[in-house]
Amino acid sequence: MGGLRTLPWYVAGSQVLGVACVVITGVWMGHYRGGYAWDGSTQEFNVHPLCMVLSLVFLYGDAVLVYRVFRNETKRSVKILHALLHMMALIISIVGLVAVFDFHSAAKIPHMYSLHSWCGMLTFVLFFIQWLLGLGFFLFPWASAQLRSWYLPLHVFFGLLLLAMSVGSCLLGITEKLLFSIMETYSRFTGEGVLANILGLLLVCFGVVVGYVVTRDDFRRPPNPEEEALSVHFKTLSEGEIPSSP
Amino acid sequence: MGGLRTLPWYVAGSQVLGVACVVITGVWMGHYRGGYAWDGSTQEFNVHPLCMVLSLVFLYGDAVLVYRVFRNETKRSVKILHALLHMMALIISIVGLVAVFDFHSAAKIPHMYSLHSWCGMLTFVLFFIQWLLGLGFFLFPWASAQLRSWYLPLHVFFGLLLLAMSVGSCLLGITEKLLFSIMETYSRFTGEGVLANILGLLLVCFGVVVGYVVTRDDFRRPPNPEEEALSVHFKTLSEGEIPSSP
Repeated sequence: MGGLRTLPWYVAGSQVLGVACVVITGVWMGHYRGGYAWDGSTQEFNVHPLCMVLSLVFLYGDAVLVYRVFRNETKRSVKILHALLHMMALIISIVGLVAVFDFHSAAKIPHMYSLHSWCGMLTFVLFFIQWLLGLGFFLFPWASAQLRSWYLPLHVFFGLLLLAMSVGSCLLGITEKLLFSIMETYSRFTGEGVLANILGLLLVCFGVVVGYVVTRDDFRRPPNPEEEALSVHFKTLSEGEIPSSP
Repeated sequence: MGGLRTLPWYVAGSQVLGVACVVITGVWMGHYRGGYAWDGSTQEFNVHPLCMVLSLVFLYGDAVLVYRVFRNETKRSVKILHALLHMMALIISIVGLVAVFDFHSAAKIPHMYSLHSWCGMLTFVLFFIQWLLGLGFFLFPWASAQLRSWYLPLHVFFGLLLLAMSVGSCLLGITEKLLFSIMETYSRFTGEGVLANILGLLLVCFGVVVGYVVTRDDFRRPPNPEEEALSVHFKTLSEGEIPSSP
């Protein structure tokens, strides 16, 4: 029911949700939390949520979606776009991490004590490893076809897991920030608290739509053995097995 | 690589993780937070985390796993076990929700203002709807084979989504509880804070192992058209299409 013609609506919906998440994070930190700076103050902290939502949620989600959006481009072009979007996400997330470590150091707050920091750092480290493995296995010609087709389902599984962990880490960060900033007024449904709660739900919705588009069977790229054979490096062709599409 | 003979190890690992989550939640509330009661006090609140981890994480995850664990039982028996485990999860989660609403009412704390409460309630309501739809579509003979095979992938997608949302809601609850109880000492890596953080990571690990077992291709139930045909109600047989295995 619905089928492939509904795909553009889901993709458009994901983009509206993703942009809304980035804008609301920007407004929350810009309007309610005093704006941005790079001087060790809480304004430097404010760079952290904005960078993380932009990188490990929005850009990450879009990097995952490219395989469904660009259905008629060659696999190799889409792979390169996928890797580039993830590289942008990696760079922006490092800026976001430096911001919060700087802020903690300047304010003499211990690093890495909270569940948010543990989950967020685990997500970042796994994301970085996944990006390196993705480059090594799929973009460069080092891995054999057997190795690629062994790693592919793990890459897909961990890819979706890391999107869920990114969203989850953002929600933990929202809860921490609200309880540190407006613990006394949060329970009175103040504007800032409600806005941040809505941000949390929109982040979940973005993750759900991306996850649905990527896992839905009739949205998959059609198998194209000829293109697969062309995109696989010569040395792997002789080994007989062709990796299937993510 | 590995294949079906590794399945028992994943299942055993999930059970160790699940039991550890329930026990650590029990110890946290029992030892660090003053134990349990049903009198509107914080001891009544303590019933809430224990019930939610037991129901919407551990029992929920096990209900999802039954299709992989009982590979050689009839589909109908496994469906009934799946529905019963979810019914136990539903009942225990209602007790957990009543505990926290009772506590809020007695302490004159507003209900449903936090991101944890929004996410948790959304998870519970979707879980209840999914359980009702699961009964109506798959266990009772009301739905046609076409309707079943249309709903099945949605049931599977929302099933895994709700497990992720359950785990995420628990992590939000852990963060809230720690910041309400030990905000001053949390950053000094006190025993309670570290224990609760570890609980958070173990909940994530439980969700990851269950999600991996359920989505891994070579762990799927072998298709058995004869059994499918027997388990589908007579009135649907004439409609030609047989729902595939979840």
